[in-house]
Order: sequence, then structure tokens, then C-alpha cells
Amino acid sequence: MGSDRDAHPLSRSADWPQAWLARTFPHAPNDVALYRAALTHRSASGRNNERLEFLGDAVLNMLAGEWLFERFPLAPEGDLSRLRASLVSESPLAQIAQQIGVGEQLQLGSGELKTGGFRRESILADALEALIGAVYLDKGLEVTREWVRGLLASPLAQLPEADALKDPKTRLQEYLQARALALPLYEVERIEGEAHAQHFAVRCELKSLQAVTFGEGSSRRRAEQQAAAQMLQQLVERS
Amino acid sequence: MGSDRDAHPLSRSADWPQAWLARTFPHAPNDVALYRAALTHRSASGRNNERLEFLGDAVLNMLAGEWLFERFPLAPEGDLSRLRASLVSESPLAQIAQQIGVGEQLQLGSGELKTGGFRRESILADALEALIGAVYLDKGLEVTREWVRGLLASPLAQLPEADALKDPKTRLQEYLQARALALPLYEVERIEGEAHAQHFAVRCELKSLQAVTFGEGSSRRRAEQQAAAQMLQQLVERS
Repeated sequence: MGSDRDAHPLSRSADWPQAWLARTFPHAPNDVALYRAALTHRSASGRNNERLEFLGDAVLNMLAGEWLFERFPLAPEGDLSRLRASLVSESPLAQIAQQIGVGEQLQLGSGELKTGGFRRESILADALEALIGAVYLDKGLEVTREWVRGLLASPLAQLPEADALKDPKTRLQEYLQARALALPLYEVERIEGEAHAQHFAVRCELKSLQAVTFGEGSSRRRAEQQAAAQMLQQLVERS
Repeated sequence: MGSDRDAHPLSRSADWPQAWLARTFPHAPNDVALYRAALTHRSASGRNNERLEFLGDAVLNMLAGEWLFERFPLAPEGDLSRLRASLVSESPLAQIAQQIGVGEQLQLGSGELKTGGFRRESILADALEALIGAVYLDKGLEVTREWVRGLLASPLAQLPEADALKDPKTRLQEYLQARALALPLYEVERIEGEAHAQHFAVRCELKSLQAVTFGEGSSRRRAEQQAAAQMLQQLVERS
């Protein structure tokens, strides 16, 4: 256990954790006491991070949900839920916490310290959530959103499901860009029906490959996605 | 079943649901298509509310959590979680949806319509969450927060736990105001310890009743709360 204790400073300087905050956050914290509380496990004395973790967990869920909602505009609700569950589960959160050095900043009671609590996944993940709560209270939603999206970018890219869930237009675009080909042209061919029950027919053309596909749907976006999916299939079959 | 169908208009005018939106929301919606989708159950054709419900559920959880965090500054995380779970569970959400007339605005497939789906709690609660998602996308967090706090105010007041969780300063203030008595004076008597391990001693005085109590804690706020709790106890014992 000696080595575990060695890896974690037992006493804090009076300005803890200001140097770490300055290194870690793109913004300048206003209320440092909030960040101190976020880094204080309930086993230590003083204001601990349990309430901030409650708040930060909700903020994180919202921001992750919102991000997935934006990035996967055609993914059904079930896929979004599954993706989010993988993204904000304990293990990836603990990994992020470790990467930004939360473990060394944690304030723990002596029992937790002796048994290496600053390396335990649940303690690290909780502290990260509490930090998200602290940033939200201290700097508001915009700053928190930017910080959290930065933290989640690499875990999201590593989720095997994420690529398959990209919408066909995005995948088609990436496919063409990877081959240095011009982007497709989408054109509405037909709109039918009344104002709130319209039906769209769309044409997708790749001039460089002399390929044309069609798509239909209850919105222009949906029709375009269908046409893009057809085009992707055609390209894969050709290659 | 006939009467169920009678209670729900089978066809929509072209500007559905604009009149209802104007009656229901304090803000003027920009993107009406979002609200239409929020009111469209998956049993109906067209863009339905499942993705918006995913987003709105996360926004609601965050806003409810944030509100409880603010209103009950001394409640431990477990109490906040319990309160939120009661507040945003299906039954109270369905009741709110019913009160603002979501049922009559719902777009359902004919099967759901025949069996009175527009009165089913799960369908109503989901549609309310989807509407919260729509407002968030359409008008941003501030507008959504204001609307959601208005919707939750009465369900929150009805939770039996909520009153007990109010912090002592708030309860003392309400106790005195209800009796038309002057508010207490709090004064810091002593601060001890280093910068991030300070200890506060605070005095609470009620001049009108010639009563004084004391409190201590790791922050001024905590010390004041303790002094207020002592004062409340004294008042209750006197009366």
C-alpha cells in the first residue's frame, strides 16, 4: 500500500487545486470552492462532491443526449439510448477522469487513501460528474457543453456502433471525400400533399461518376437520406 | 369506444396545432414542425415524437435536478434523487399533459385512437417530454427552464417530502413571515483554520423575541443553517 500512498500527495497547498484547474480547463474558474467540493470524496472532511455529482450526472446526460441527437439525425430513440449508455457509463468516465489527472487531485479520507481509492473507477467517475456540475454552476451551459464535448469526442469515436449510426448523407460525404471526389447534388423533384402531410421526392446525382439515385419521404431531409443510402449502395456494389 | 373517438378530433385543420400552441406556451414558437412531431405518436404516420422524447426526457431530468439542487441546498444527494424520481415519473407527467390539453392535440394511429390511447398515461407523459425537447430545440434552455418550472411547481408543492427538505433558514423565514415577525439577523462570530479548511461560528438573533442561538460548520452557510435549525426548535418548544 506504501506505493499507493506515495502516488497521492497527502497534504494540499493552500491554493489547491488552482494550478490543476488552470492546466485543465479552457476557462478561468470563478468559484474555486465549487471545484474543491467536486474533488472531495465523502470519506474526507469538508464539503464533499455528492450533491454536485447529482447535478453533474444530469447535466452530462443531457449534453451527451443532445450531442447524439444532433450527430445521428436519423438514429431511432433506442439507438441513441444505447449509445449514450455506453458513452457515459462508469468505465469511460473513469478513464477520462484519469486522463485529466483527477486522481491526483482527489481529497480522500485516510481509509480510502490507504486502499488506493483515487484509482477506483466509481470514485473517479463520480468526481468527474461532480466537476461537470461545478463547471455548470460556475460558468453556465455553453462553457460546460464545450468542455464536455471535448472530453467525450474520443470515447464517442471509439464506440463501434457510432459509425453505423451516422446518417447516409454523412457517410456518403465521407466516402466521397476520402476518395477526393466531388460532393453529390440533391434536388427536389416533387412535393405532394397538404401542408403538414407532405411527401417529397428527391434526386441525388454524382456527376463525376454519372450516377443518379432517388429517394422519397415525409420531409426533404428524409428523402435526401434515402437517396444518399441508395447512392452508397450503388457505389459499394460498383467497387 | 364511440365516446372515446368523439372526444378526440379525427381530422386536423391545416394549421394544427398553432391555436393550441398560442394558448399553451408563453413564447411564440418558431419551428412549428417540431411541435407537430412532438404531438405525433409513433402509431400515426409522419415524423413521430420518439427522438424528441429522448431529448426532452434528458432536458427535464436536468432541469428538475437543477431546481431541486437550488431549492434544497442542504438535502443530501439521496433525497434529491428520490424527490426527482417522484416528480418526473409517468403519473405526474401524464397529469400535467392532461391539464395543458395534450390529449386532444395528439396525433395517433387509428388503432390507438379507437382504444383511447390519447388518455393513456405513458402516451401522455411521453408526449409531454417530447414537447419539452421541442421547446428546448426551438427556444433554448432559458425559455424551457421557465416553462418547465411553471409546470412542475404544483406537483412539487404536493410532494410530502418536499417541505421537510427545505433548509432550516428557509423554514425559519417562512415561520416568521407567517406570524408577521421580523426576520432573524445572522452574524459571523469566529472563523478558524486555514483557507480551505475553515471553521465558522455564527450567531442567529431574533430581536422581537429576544432569542439567540448559535451554529458552527465548515462554511458560513452551514453554520447559519445550524443556528437557524436551533432557533426553529426553540420557537417550537416555546409555542
